Amino acid sequence: MELLEAIRSRRSVKQFAEKPLPRELIEQVLEAALWAPSGQNLQPVRFWVITDREVLKELESALYEHGLKLKKLLPILRLFVARFKGEKGPRLFRSLRPALFNGAPALVLTGADTGSSTTYAKDCTLAAMNLMLAAQGLGLGSCYFGWTALLNRMSDWKKRLDIPSGVEIVDGIGLGYPAGERQPPARKAVEEVTTWVEPAGSARQ
Amino acid sequence: MELLEAIRSRRSVKQFAEKPLPRELIEQVLEAALWAPSGQNLQPVRFWVITDREVLKELESALYEHGLKLKKLLPILRLFVARFKGEKGPRLFRSLRPALFNGAPALVLTGADTGSSTTYAKDCTLAAMNLMLAAQGLGLGSCYFGWTALLNRMSDWKKRLDIPSGVEIVDGIGLGYPAGERQPPARKAVEEVTTWVEPAGSARQ
Repeated sequence: MELLEAIRSRRSVKQFAEKPLPRELIEQVLEAALWAPSGQNLQPVRFWVITDREVLKELESALYEHGLKLKKLLPILRLFVARFKGEKGPRLFRSLRPALFNGAPALVLTGADTGSSTTYAKDCTLAAMNLMLAAQGLGLGSCYFGWTALLNRMSDWKKRLDIPSGVEIVDGIGLGYPAGERQPPARKAVEEVTTWVEPAGSARQ
Repeated sequence: MELLEAIRSRRSVKQFAEKPLPRELIEQVLEAALWAPSGQNLQPVRFWVITDREVLKELESALYEHGLKLKKLLPILRLFVARFKGEKGPRLFRSLRPALFNGAPALVLTGADTGSSTTYAKDCTLAAMNLMLAAQGLGLGSCYFGWTALLNRMSDWKKRLDIPSGVEIVDGIGLGYPAGERQPPARKAVEEVTTWVEPAGSARQ
């Protein structure tokens, strides 16, 4: 698939088909993801790939339950944690629902050893974007799941998924075949979100 | 350009050519970047594009000087700031040098209002990867610059670049034509960095 076509046609898949995913396809997607840049080329990014349906189901429930516990604490969290302040907290929790994985037959977690570099989190997220685009190019669908970051507070689950205690999970991405067609939602226009600092005499917004 | 070819041929450009960049090309790159997903589709990502050579030169010096000041504090920072602990701090500062922008004729900063969402930083970095791939597809080169994050501590410069005080700058990317050809460095193999959690009975690494 052509690059710009892949970029513009990729969307967050809200419902995946039941069809399972061949491991070879997942490997191709991961290989592409590894071509993302990393700070000082240290390549700290690691992947955990979960395709066991039972494990996926249990993990989805565990994340949802953990999210509900946090939601109960929201009135306190809003006062003390920058991340949850103002309207941000309530808005975030509106996305908490039982079917967090949208029926994806595969979940890829990115993460890195927190001692590996100062930029490991960004390195992971750059790889996550490559991963989602590569999936698109191979005829698959993907969806970025923010709630998987809760895994960092769930040591029993980290153990179960073979994630070392020194590793921080950064991104979670569902992979699979999309059920049905859907257009990506419209985007803001470039001029709406861009400030130009151009040489004197150039056209300036 | 074909998607996987773009992903595999993109590299961090260490030296840009003197050739200036038409604004139309930068706009195309930004348009592609905006197709990255964002948490709850809130689209908080904003861009600042600097093509004024004088401003670029002064900013590059200012970031370098600010970095040198931090470097002097490193023995103390290593004790108290997780980000600089162990070998991470000294390794990071090895990348500090006067020519931080590699001669790029354009610098794109991504950032967002810190009150916009809980996931704005990841949203920016996902857009940054799309941006670098789109540049590759259009025959341009790019390089991710981590040191631009220092701008968040430089209120005089934020003012000069029209960056509101409530905005956090997340990524900095140099754009331009690469000077000379270079192959991207080899990547780790998928099996080296991946843990599989598969249904019982599947092949497992």
